[in-house]
Amino acid sequence: MLNYQLLKEDQKTSARLGKITTLRGEIDTPIFMPVGTLGTVKSMTNQDLEKMKAQIILGNTYHLYLRPGMDIIAQAGGLHKFMNWKHPILTDSGGFQVFSLGPLRKITEEGVAFSSHLDGSKHFLSPEKSIEIQNIIGADIIMSFDECTPGQVDYEYAKKSMEMTLRWAERCKKAHQKPDTQALFGIVQGGMYEDLRQTCAKSLVEMDFPGYSIGGLSVGEPKPLMYRMLDHTVPFLPKNKPRYLMGVGSLDALFEGVARGIDMFDCVLQTRIARNGSALTSTGQKTIRNATYKDDFSPLDENCDCFVCQNHTKAYIRHLIKCNEILAARLLTYHNLYFTLKIMENIRQAIAENRFSEYKVDFFQKYGIKKD
Amino acid sequence: MLNYQLLKEDQKTSARLGKITTLRGEIDTPIFMPVGTLGTVKSMTNQDLEKMKAQIILGNTYHLYLRPGMDIIAQAGGLHKFMNWKHPILTDSGGFQVFSLGPLRKITEEGVAFSSHLDGSKHFLSPEKSIEIQNIIGADIIMSFDECTPGQVDYEYAKKSMEMTLRWAERCKKAHQKPDTQALFGIVQGGMYEDLRQTCAKSLVEMDFPGYSIGGLSVGEPKPLMYRMLDHTVPFLPKNKPRYLMGVGSLDALFEGVARGIDMFDCVLQTRIARNGSALTSTGQKTIRNATYKDDFSPLDENCDCFVCQNHTKAYIRHLIKCNEILAARLLTYHNLYFTLKIMENIRQAIAENRFSEYKVDFFQKYGIKKD
Repeated sequence: MLNYQLLKEDQKTSARLGKITTLRGEIDTPIFMPVGTLGTVKSMTNQDLEKMKAQIILGNTYHLYLRPGMDIIAQAGGLHKFMNWKHPILTDSGGFQVFSLGPLRKITEEGVAFSSHLDGSKHFLSPEKSIEIQNIIGADIIMSFDECTPGQVDYEYAKKSMEMTLRWAERCKKAHQKPDTQALFGIVQGGMYEDLRQTCAKSLVEMDFPGYSIGGLSVGEPKPLMYRMLDHTVPFLPKNKPRYLMGVGSLDALFEGVARGIDMFDCVLQTRIARNGSALTSTGQKTIRNATYKDDFSPLDENCDCFVCQNHTKAYIRHLIKCNEILAARLLTYHNLYFTLKIMENIRQAIAENRFSEYKVDFFQKYGIKKD
Repeated sequence: MLNYQLLKEDQKTSARLGKITTLRGEIDTPIFMPVGTLGTVKSMTNQDLEKMKAQIILGNTYHLYLRPGMDIIAQAGGLHKFMNWKHPILTDSGGFQVFSLGPLRKITEEGVAFSSHLDGSKHFLSPEKSIEIQNIIGADIIMSFDECTPGQVDYEYAKKSMEMTLRWAERCKKAHQKPDTQALFGIVQGGMYEDLRQTCAKSLVEMDFPGYSIGGLSVGEPKPLMYRMLDHTVPFLPKNKPRYLMGVGSLDALFEGVARGIDMFDCVLQTRIARNGSALTSTGQKTIRNATYKDDFSPLDENCDCFVCQNHTKAYIRHLIKCNEILAARLLTYHNLYFTLKIMENIRQAIAENRFSEYKVDFFQKYGIKKD
């Protein structure tokens, strides 16, 4: 069961305010979803995630399939119970990770044969198998198994790949055992070709999914090209269904995606740069590891009201980073996620108050993002 | 300023209930003090420490002196402000760490020349220097600079070392600039020789310190020998001052120490085994990393009311350990510290209710500790 309610459309852009209802709670859109690859948003507890008002988190099918494995997840009664997360979860199809394995995988019409990045053990992922795994994991929103087309392939490859993704989407729909409790999204592919994106979007809409994802746009392509692909995809998706831009979540892309009608985002950037010692702030990304912060006794962000900024200084966090203390990753992860979720809340508020474009200009200016 | 109030003495053992008052709050004794080597109890926030009711934590002078360095600590306004911990802190003298450096240090009557374990840079620590550093760090309880006598030295070495420790204690007292806000403890040494321990204790008591530490008993000696040394030390310490057994905190040693009149303990065991994937439970220490727990969906300890045991299973935590997830260290650290602090609370309650010996027998039986 999944319901999308369109609450308000922006007048100047395609931004929209909405609410997704699932059996495990409501999700205010546009939303950012923290990534919990292996059943944990790295270094965060569920309480942390609730405190920062995360409404939905991601799990990665490929990773969970290998560890702890489906026997354990099934015995636990699904991922929610395994990690004790009571709110919505979204899983990907495993496709992106499997395709990222490069020489370790082989793609056929049937599916993808691959070797585990952990121990080289051989596995086979097909549309049916991906859905079977996702049915066991039990996420509230699941993804159809697609071929994540690389950014630089030629038109012919992109077309064939997109057509296979459509056939796979059909097979996923057919294989899905729990449509009443898990909403299956179709994924728009088509490389960097406008017409393929349009065709794919239209074909998927004909299949009538409860939501639509846009894939293949976090594969290293220039951002203006990503925005152009969105311009040629979103208009062909129905207004009464949520739209999820997969794997994209840099701050500028969040605003640009929202402006183009995207409702859902996820990204590992926030948590990854945290573990590398960097913080997102309203005046730009800062490498707190740098010596310049060694005696900076101000918070990561002067205007942030997260517990990290309310309690700790850059100098202290830099010290923790330099000493390889776990707490450094933890504090920076909390702040970066809180900061991003707060921006999404601000964006929703701005749309509600007819000032999204103004907020975007203002944010970009302070953050130091050039206008596009 | 430090005041020790003796609230109750056990009838069957030397256990005692007390209260230490410092400018930054009260400490119920007997107490366990989590170790925050580098200005962080590894993976824990201050909020975590408050939630688990930690009343006082440790900082390590040697480590803080090297990182972030005294210039940063001084600029921050002391360690409390640097790490934003509002409750009491205790610092060691740096002696133990410096002596552990082995070939990297040279001891003379004046002090200890040593090379940093980080970059080989040369430093000199003397009683005066240690106190100067501890005055900058600003802990509520500080330690005199001692030579931590190894466990196996001959009588002559132990005697000379203990006598130097006494002369250093005098120098520390003299060098101490903030006796009104920081309580300086003398440290009893004397190797594994009863008469040296007695002599050292008596001599320190004549110097009249606000509290007494017992050092050199976490250096690998057999536990019965440690307990024998306590039997020949504690009786010579005044009843109206707190007694701190340095670096000791295994669960059996906590009970045995309390039974011999010890008020304060610290140990890295709880946090170190957590990072190695082990949990303290009422039925013994468990290696959660082991395959036997892969489908064990019960909490770390059935009777523990910490948030980890209330929310997560051994199977989930084992999965996190196997995936090298930061959250594993965090959950196990919280549980191990909570569990230990809870035991100390139970011990205090038992002393108050005249049933400490019974509680000890009961705990040892369940935990699987043989009677000594």
